[in-house]
Amino acid sequence: MQTKEHSFWQDHVNLIRFVGKWALLITPVAIAGGTASALFLWMLDEATRLRIAYPALLYGLPLAGVLIVWVYQQAGKRAEQGNNLLIDEIHQPGGGVPGRMAPLVLLTSVLTHLFGGSAGREGTAVQMGGSLAGVIGRWLKLSEADLRMLLMAGVAAGFGAIFGTPLAGAIFALEVLTIGRMEYSAIVPCLMASIVGDVVCSAWGVHHTHYAVLFSGRELPVFSAEHTWLVGKTVLAGCAFGLAALLFSEMNHGFQRLYKRYVPSVYLKPVIGGLVLIGLVYALGTRDYLGLGVTAQRPGGVSILSAFVSGGADPLSWWWKLLFTTITLSSGFKGGEVTPLFFIGACLGNWLAGLMNAPVDLFAAIGFIAVFGGAANTPLACTIMGLELFGADNLIFFAIGCFVAYLFSGHRSIYMAQRIGLSKTDDAIRSTIQRLSDR
Amino acid sequence: MQTKEHSFWQDHVNLIRFVGKWALLITPVAIAGGTASALFLWMLDEATRLRIAYPALLYGLPLAGVLIVWVYQQAGKRAEQGNNLLIDEIHQPGGGVPGRMAPLVLLTSVLTHLFGGSAGREGTAVQMGGSLAGVIGRWLKLSEADLRMLLMAGVAAGFGAIFGTPLAGAIFALEVLTIGRMEYSAIVPCLMASIVGDVVCSAWGVHHTHYAVLFSGRELPVFSAEHTWLVGKTVLAGCAFGLAALLFSEMNHGFQRLYKRYVPSVYLKPVIGGLVLIGLVYALGTRDYLGLGVTAQRPGGVSILSAFVSGGADPLSWWWKLLFTTITLSSGFKGGEVTPLFFIGACLGNWLAGLMNAPVDLFAAIGFIAVFGGAANTPLACTIMGLELFGADNLIFFAIGCFVAYLFSGHRSIYMAQRIGLSKTDDAIRSTIQRLSDR
Repeated sequence: MQTKEHSFWQDHVNLIRFVGKWALLITPVAIAGGTASALFLWMLDEATRLRIAYPALLYGLPLAGVLIVWVYQQAGKRAEQGNNLLIDEIHQPGGGVPGRMAPLVLLTSVLTHLFGGSAGREGTAVQMGGSLAGVIGRWLKLSEADLRMLLMAGVAAGFGAIFGTPLAGAIFALEVLTIGRMEYSAIVPCLMASIVGDVVCSAWGVHHTHYAVLFSGRELPVFSAEHTWLVGKTVLAGCAFGLAALLFSEMNHGFQRLYKRYVPSVYLKPVIGGLVLIGLVYALGTRDYLGLGVTAQRPGGVSILSAFVSGGADPLSWWWKLLFTTITLSSGFKGGEVTPLFFIGACLGNWLAGLMNAPVDLFAAIGFIAVFGGAANTPLACTIMGLELFGADNLIFFAIGCFVAYLFSGHRSIYMAQRIGLSKTDDAIRSTIQRLSDR
Repeated sequence: MQTKEHSFWQDHVNLIRFVGKWALLITPVAIAGGTASALFLWMLDEATRLRIAYPALLYGLPLAGVLIVWVYQQAGKRAEQGNNLLIDEIHQPGGGVPGRMAPLVLLTSVLTHLFGGSAGREGTAVQMGGSLAGVIGRWLKLSEADLRMLLMAGVAAGFGAIFGTPLAGAIFALEVLTIGRMEYSAIVPCLMASIVGDVVCSAWGVHHTHYAVLFSGRELPVFSAEHTWLVGKTVLAGCAFGLAALLFSEMNHGFQRLYKRYVPSVYLKPVIGGLVLIGLVYALGTRDYLGLGVTAQRPGGVSILSAFVSGGADPLSWWWKLLFTTITLSSGFKGGEVTPLFFIGACLGNWLAGLMNAPVDLFAAIGFIAVFGGAANTPLACTIMGLELFGADNLIFFAIGCFVAYLFSGHRSIYMAQRIGLSKTDDAIRSTIQRLSDR
């Protein structure tokens, strides 16, 4: 009994020290990360406004891309690896996450959006959060283990703040590291960081878009044929969302390989990519697929918001956004993948709902989170994001959509540094953790 | 590229086979598990009604306990190990989960409740689901790996059905196996099983209790001093919930050790336990802490429902329920731990809300899920259960409460077979997975 008592008190003294220490360490990281996200969201709004006010800015896209590549060539060093560097450094601390990553990705993401590249936000927020955490960690001379945890907290703070979804941010930071497995040791620090990050970002007066899903699934447990069909349709849609996620990852990596093989100069990449995008805008006769795409820049335009309403997206909208975004990101422009994945998923959901005679707002919401869940292999974070954005009514549809999409996206990922901890359909390779890009 | 194409198609053929195979395997397990849960819930209702109609039944408690112990001695074999056997068999298939576990636990749980033992439901439901899965798995001559997955699905179906919380059921089945780590390979089969189990249980006309939390935390991200305080209070309450969970586990195991040391005959245990409970009923002058405790058996009585209202629980209600339940379960009576843990948490939350001037319904709800999350080391399943029972408004408070309680419950558990995959505050012991009771 003596050792037991001892270990009880020791356990709890350790716990209180653990929580106290991390509360202290995380506060500056989360405040910095939340503030950076708020600044970025504000700059993004301004850039989007300018882009719409001055349509001719689009012609500057190739040149802006050259500038972005040049900046990273001059000052980027390892920062160019972006999210993958963060994931690698959390798995196995190496050269550290450079402080320059934060200003570089902020500047270049805003440039991308200003000139009409199709990109997102989460890469920028996560990299700013991680980079600030890395700097603060080095200042404080943290141990390797502590630095890993602080980096995860930085990722959580950035993600939680940029989307206004703190729990999803914390789970994302844990879940994104390894496919098929999640470890809890960092959850409380990550949760503290993402809550503080989100609160700080909101305190700067930044508001997040509200998406309305009016369909209520509350009645699901009462057995009825209608709900059985709806579950079946959700499974089918989940397969489609997973395949769209897979297509996104493969096209992104495919374009990168093509550039590497056939384009000798890195400065040519954004010129080619920019010109192709300008050509696509004229070929399609719409600018709906440029930029972030949360709201439409013209009445009747396709956007994430419009996809929640019947008729708000064309049957191929998801494909065009996928093409615009993979070209943008593989050509060297900066930003994130997630908001475009929301767009792709919501539009695909909109179309599938029409095909399958299902509620449009529900399927747009499922696609919104599920394509992202499949592409990033973070089905739980995305299910929770669904709750944080759309409410708990349709929880079970969100979970089905995200986990089926996760299965059907295969062992691919938008993050090449992600490890496979456990095969999705089989636990035989339990002991082999592989970096995805090493396969 | 050839190998890549190949592996793409192979991946997806495997996936479709995987999903199809498990849909087929899981359907009978989930239908059986959901039906068993419905039967149990109905019998439980009847038993509770009888117990209240005939208060003298309480005097039969010691004898009922002797009967329960005798039944397990005669016919129980390994089934007596209950949830721990299931967890062990999922980790490492051994002698299998006996089919007799289902009828035995059903019968003895109903007896426990009929005569006034303080116990829950989830143990019964989970053991019935697991046992039925084991029988079906043996009929089908499944491989070890498939049998493990089917057992997890049985657990998910039982848990999802008994509480009407399918997503929490699926996550619980994954999360309960190992402290500090969750692996995803079984999530889709578990989710299928818990949804079907829940739907089947509802189809039998069983209804779940509705708890109303009127407090809305939706406004949290808008920074205000009030919300900061509320987050701080939630953290403090989370610590208390974790310590209550720890106390529950320790008292349960402590009573078991006492019995082992000082009571020579297993038949004496329920006699002593039953007599102590009868004595406590007269000492306290209330029967509120007998049985399930979801609703009060008299106007003004303490119950889980009453704890959601200011003044609905006494300051020591949580402690009395903890005492009644640990005596009941350690004396050899059957049922589960979870509903009493809900009761303990809701009453403790009720009291803490008064002390800290916080919303009573919110804190009762947090306690409801967090004490269970701490005791079973399943913080994520419990956060999700909070959503499924109380809605998404207060998600962030649920997450804080559950994860803080999980931290502060230490490396103890109501399930001795649970493994430690990762220490809660430190990831240094990554490679040592230990059975809790081996420590």
